[in-house]
Amino acid sequence: MKRVLTTALAAVFLAGPVMAQTAAPAVTEDFKPSSVNQPGQAYPQVNSQGYVRFRVTAPDAQAVMVSLGLGGRGGTTLTKGADGAWTGTTEGPMDEGFHYYHLTVDGGTFNDPGTLNFYGSTRWESGIEVPAHDADFYALKDVPHGNVQQILFPSPSTGTQRRAFVYTPPGYDASKAERYPVLYLQHGWGEDETAWANQGHANLIMDNLIAEGKARPFIIVMTYGMTNEVKPGGLFSFDIKPFQTVLVNELIPYVDSHFRTLSDQPHRAMAGLSMGGFETKLITFANIDKFAYIGLLSGGTISVDDVNKTPGFKDKVKLAFVSFGSRELEGPRMGPPGAPPQDPRKNAEELKASGVNSVFYVSPNTAHEFLSWRRSLHELAPLLFRD
Amino acid sequence: MKRVLTTALAAVFLAGPVMAQTAAPAVTEDFKPSSVNQPGQAYPQVNSQGYVRFRVTAPDAQAVMVSLGLGGRGGTTLTKGADGAWTGTTEGPMDEGFHYYHLTVDGGTFNDPGTLNFYGSTRWESGIEVPAHDADFYALKDVPHGNVQQILFPSPSTGTQRRAFVYTPPGYDASKAERYPVLYLQHGWGEDETAWANQGHANLIMDNLIAEGKARPFIIVMTYGMTNEVKPGGLFSFDIKPFQTVLVNELIPYVDSHFRTLSDQPHRAMAGLSMGGFETKLITFANIDKFAYIGLLSGGTISVDDVNKTPGFKDKVKLAFVSFGSRELEGPRMGPPGAPPQDPRKNAEELKASGVNSVFYVSPNTAHEFLSWRRSLHELAPLLFRD
Repeated sequence: MKRVLTTALAAVFLAGPVMAQTAAPAVTEDFKPSSVNQPGQAYPQVNSQGYVRFRVTAPDAQAVMVSLGLGGRGGTTLTKGADGAWTGTTEGPMDEGFHYYHLTVDGGTFNDPGTLNFYGSTRWESGIEVPAHDADFYALKDVPHGNVQQILFPSPSTGTQRRAFVYTPPGYDASKAERYPVLYLQHGWGEDETAWANQGHANLIMDNLIAEGKARPFIIVMTYGMTNEVKPGGLFSFDIKPFQTVLVNELIPYVDSHFRTLSDQPHRAMAGLSMGGFETKLITFANIDKFAYIGLLSGGTISVDDVNKTPGFKDKVKLAFVSFGSRELEGPRMGPPGAPPQDPRKNAEELKASGVNSVFYVSPNTAHEFLSWRRSLHELAPLLFRD
Repeated sequence: MKRVLTTALAAVFLAGPVMAQTAAPAVTEDFKPSSVNQPGQAYPQVNSQGYVRFRVTAPDAQAVMVSLGLGGRGGTTLTKGADGAWTGTTEGPMDEGFHYYHLTVDGGTFNDPGTLNFYGSTRWESGIEVPAHDADFYALKDVPHGNVQQILFPSPSTGTQRRAFVYTPPGYDASKAERYPVLYLQHGWGEDETAWANQGHANLIMDNLIAEGKARPFIIVMTYGMTNEVKPGGLFSFDIKPFQTVLVNELIPYVDSHFRTLSDQPHRAMAGLSMGGFETKLITFANIDKFAYIGLLSGGTISVDDVNKTPGFKDKVKLAFVSFGSRELEGPRMGPPGAPPQDPRKNAEELKASGVNSVFYVSPNTAHEFLSWRRSLHELAPLLFRD
């Protein structure tokens, strides 16, 4: 198995696509426009093997390159044709799912005018979608749909009106009295509160699960978690308090007073991806009286030691869910710099043996990217609020 | 008065900023980042006079230009400095408000990596905000906020699940029984259902009006109006039926069954900007039994002849609101090619004299752009549903 040489922190907190680890086959000429292209744009395209082909018009440019993923492994140098368009195809197939990327045009960073933009790496980036074999679970189907709504809530602690998005499940508006449990769901470093609906399709995943009777209808709340400035490598000195104050003291009361929620501890969950998992662990462990379900998606691990240090955990926490993309587990084990490496799977197994409802999920053939997290939400949601 | 030489259709249907018609004064060096920059981005900047300064990094580029507005009047050729950054300042001050723009880098069209993107001209474009002296009416304030929610509604006529955004006013969620009137509010050509909340700040305009007691709380529904492919110049042969079917037969029943609406004719309005005004006129005049309030924002005119040809109009329509940006009225009068030019102000006055509640509003010193439409909504909303 090829080891992916990333630093421990990068493995945990940075988004990075990884080329599928296969010898390059012949490229099949069945390229189609990516599903996240701008309306009417023919490029970029993806073929049935997962190769991506780019085409960018810049007739007087000297050099056009594509940066796709950590260390540029998905990077592609484009070649100018007689028509002034720069084209190129990735050297190998990309992993299935969503990848952020951008262009370098004559030394400047620009987005591909062919694609929609997605907030990642603290900027709006281009995105490409390599169709996944299991894409049906997050497809837009003719089923009853919940709504995703922007709310603006007052935050005295930060002196701002802050934004969150709230998914209300199908039937929420029609039923005038029913109350619903709530999942607080956090994005990763460099992303924002738009990520879970835009890149993650959280609403469609829930619509489909609910239509199939596989998940209990619940509300999802997504807000901005980078209340502090966080830089890669600085997370272990991260002060969670400012964001915890926004979430626990300001957002939760706002949601409970403006939506028909079940507002007791057994009906509140928190989960997050990457940095959002890190935040989830800090906030839920410090507020066991407020959260009954915990999900860390490519965002850390929960050990027996963590639980033993947290009074009330075993009584009050109904689920400790930890997931990763399989490629994240191929690299060095993650953990704080200098600390002994931790094996999240072993932690999860030990936790289960100690009597905690510990669930460990690995997304096949994906890295620290959104297909891992779409799948993780799809695994997590059916386990929530099953009281 | 300088005449703006645009074609009649361009004057009605294309977005285009116009440089303020003043002799260029000395440039004041008090530039600040535009309010619609990406987080943490210092450029583009705007000064107190409305000049815009750009800075784009592309050290190996041959030429970087800014396209801002019809005919490139706000265009700026940037100059490369020793540090590899291309900088430049508009030749004169821009009109107050929001303007779309993009970069041309070595012959290719790209967005400015410094700014957020806004859907206009059938693509996601860069945007710049020149602070308006009256910006307070659409500012984000510490008042009760309504929500903007994405809905996905089934559309049998198009075989798709279609998206709309729904503004529900403050208090909607808390009050379990109150029902609300509904305004259907359409974007312009090349824009989509995101425009009125993103560029238009429709939600903040309503929040502020409601907080001041100046407008009755109502629901606003915004959906995609380019059901047909429309090209500039082709609008007068535009077939409204596909979009009318989506709006009247599919979206309205969905909204009325999923939200607490007042679903009778006296409590339903339709308004639109530019092409959306054109659609509004066609749909409301063909469905006088369904709409009581009509608003055309830089999107046409209503004559006594129009009304006389429409049985029931005078009995059932409570308001005919028509507005323009002042600069739109400086050019040639608009009208179908070959037809005698119409004066929308004269039409509105004659309509009022004929007994219709006709209101004509002109946004000072703005062109066919979003500040005209923010102000128009701010004028229109207090007049709606005053039964």
